[in-house]
Amino acid sequence: MSRYAEYRALAQSLGVDAVALVPGPNFVRLMKQDFHSHERPLLLVIPAAGPVAAIVPNLELSSFAKLGFEGEVFDWMDQSGYAGAFAALARHIPLGSLAVEGQVMRVFVHHALATAFPGLKIVDAEREISGLRLRKTAEEVAALEGAIRISELALAEVLDDVRIGMTETQIEGHLIQAMFRHGASELAFGPIVAAGENSALPHAHARDVPVQPGDALLFDWGARHGGFCADITRTVFVGHASDEAQAVYETVLQANLKGHEVTRAGITAHDVDDAVTGVLEASVFADRIRTKTGHGLGREVHEAPYIMRGNRQLLEPGMVFTNEPGLYCIGGFGVRIEDDMLVTQDGCRSLTTFPKGLRILG
Amino acid sequence: MSRYAEYRALAQSLGVDAVALVPGPNFVRLMKQDFHSHERPLLLVIPAAGPVAAIVPNLELSSFAKLGFEGEVFDWMDQSGYAGAFAALARHIPLGSLAVEGQVMRVFVHHALATAFPGLKIVDAEREISGLRLRKTAEEVAALEGAIRISELALAEVLDDVRIGMTETQIEGHLIQAMFRHGASELAFGPIVAAGENSALPHAHARDVPVQPGDALLFDWGARHGGFCADITRTVFVGHASDEAQAVYETVLQANLKGHEVTRAGITAHDVDDAVTGVLEASVFADRIRTKTGHGLGREVHEAPYIMRGNRQLLEPGMVFTNEPGLYCIGGFGVRIEDDMLVTQDGCRSLTTFPKGLRILG
Repeated sequence: MSRYAEYRALAQSLGVDAVALVPGPNFVRLMKQDFHSHERPLLLVIPAAGPVAAIVPNLELSSFAKLGFEGEVFDWMDQSGYAGAFAALARHIPLGSLAVEGQVMRVFVHHALATAFPGLKIVDAEREISGLRLRKTAEEVAALEGAIRISELALAEVLDDVRIGMTETQIEGHLIQAMFRHGASELAFGPIVAAGENSALPHAHARDVPVQPGDALLFDWGARHGGFCADITRTVFVGHASDEAQAVYETVLQANLKGHEVTRAGITAHDVDDAVTGVLEASVFADRIRTKTGHGLGREVHEAPYIMRGNRQLLEPGMVFTNEPGLYCIGGFGVRIEDDMLVTQDGCRSLTTFPKGLRILG
Repeated sequence: MSRYAEYRALAQSLGVDAVALVPGPNFVRLMKQDFHSHERPLLLVIPAAGPVAAIVPNLELSSFAKLGFEGEVFDWMDQSGYAGAFAALARHIPLGSLAVEGQVMRVFVHHALATAFPGLKIVDAEREISGLRLRKTAEEVAALEGAIRISELALAEVLDDVRIGMTETQIEGHLIQAMFRHGASELAFGPIVAAGENSALPHAHARDVPVQPGDALLFDWGARHGGFCADITRTVFVGHASDEAQAVYETVLQANLKGHEVTRAGITAHDVDDAVTGVLEASVFADRIRTKTGHGLGREVHEAPYIMRGNRQLLEPGMVFTNEPGLYCIGGFGVRIEDDMLVTQDGCRSLTTFPKGLRILG
């Protein structure tokens, strides 16, 4: 079966003439190689029926040739610009409608398409195109586990290293180096290392501020390996943990464990969030809830399924998502515990294995 | 003067009602903090006249509050989606036309704007908006120099380490770790470590292939530090260099030196490429030319000014660009030498200082 078959079928089911892919997670899944396109458009067009075609920067032609692409390639030089290649594509494959990845394609490519194909209906089919990545294959799960293992080895090292007086930025540097030493190909995202009141921001940035006794110290980090992303959070305490801190920690842990307990194929993303968030809501810390339970994880660090109330998407075997309840007290501290979970037929398997018991450093 | 003044003036000169910024290089320049928006739209609207406004994911409100943003903020929750926030923005600031960053904004935000503001004319003003970043301040040049220094220290270490039989991937891992050890906050881009025939691809990917005696070994790498990117290339040889390799190297070096010689404020980007590429064209290796001379460098690793024939943009003091002539023989080897150059009133200053003489390892 042609590697384009599922994209052709998708174009048919969407009622569009073709699907377009630009470099990014869907492109690399299909072509086994990514490109960094920066200011240079590169585009695959996969029609519902008929030959595929591509627009490729001349500079990338030799790399692109390795992909074994079967269709016509319209290349363009920096000096002359890409409008001519888009016009040539339009003459080669007249299109009335085109499904694109709305969260990947940038506006300048959208404009180039709209100019070259007058009247073209451009449909944002992010959900449907990326939906083809929802169920991970065994090989993809193995890649995820590889990324997670690298990430967990790195944190284990760093926790042994942390000393009172080290800054968030220094600890972050150690964590990043440890991920690469253990084999990361890239960072899945810029890690969060946030102590004290900074831990109360769900997307904090490390500061040049030393960690202090009593601080919560939150790590949200992950390596990329084999094209797949780890995304894990652990929160530890420095020197000692107050009674309040321990109670908050225990509440978040119970919510996280609830996620493990309820997850199985056949329930919805809503059901998981409802169960996990329900634990937080039933606690005395309900006013510290700031986020939904999680998001899908794979070639991108945020992808479907989004684990939140109202999302009636059914969980299926092979889906992977984060289970990351947290409680955040602005001006105080935050706790989040995040695992990466694989949905199985009759339950789930945690791909993350890093211990979750209350840990007090030093 | 308000920090929005130059964007307001830009909206006026473009004849649009407002400029919109999304997280990325222009956003961080203005607000001194970036956000990773993934699937969550975050948007600033700066009208030609009148109050600014923003759309912010609820999750990011506390981080956003630290920016001291002066206008109305329309937040939205994951559970309810962002359409309501865009609609509220449209009621608050009716817009007929809007300039956006076409290489930064993604299509799903474009669609959300088009839906909330019926008939909105969305203008791709990438060139003009990012054009405000063309002339680097002294502080920005210092940040660039910091990123370059980290990168150069890292390569120096790695070149001392390389042994015949190490794979490109292993060497790449060493280089990445060395950059973080020397203080990189991120990678400016995934580095290229390419030996032998792989060095002939301008955008190669490291392979699990050992370096061999006689190989050209090309490094194209750079750290990010203080928000700014280094982008440097050096090509060395392993064990020995053939006569052909030495002749190619010398040709590329002469082209690179020509770039240093001719660059000054008042000439055009075309003039620089013409002089540099002219050296390559005058050689017996003219059929190995594959790329233009370079690109601007700053908060992004590829930005204006693009140093290529046909680009009549005048060079001004404070502009920074790469001077990276190369010769590429498919199936053979490639050589590229890339410096980062600051345009000054009467010439230029190379921010890169790594030696460029022919170097044969081991």
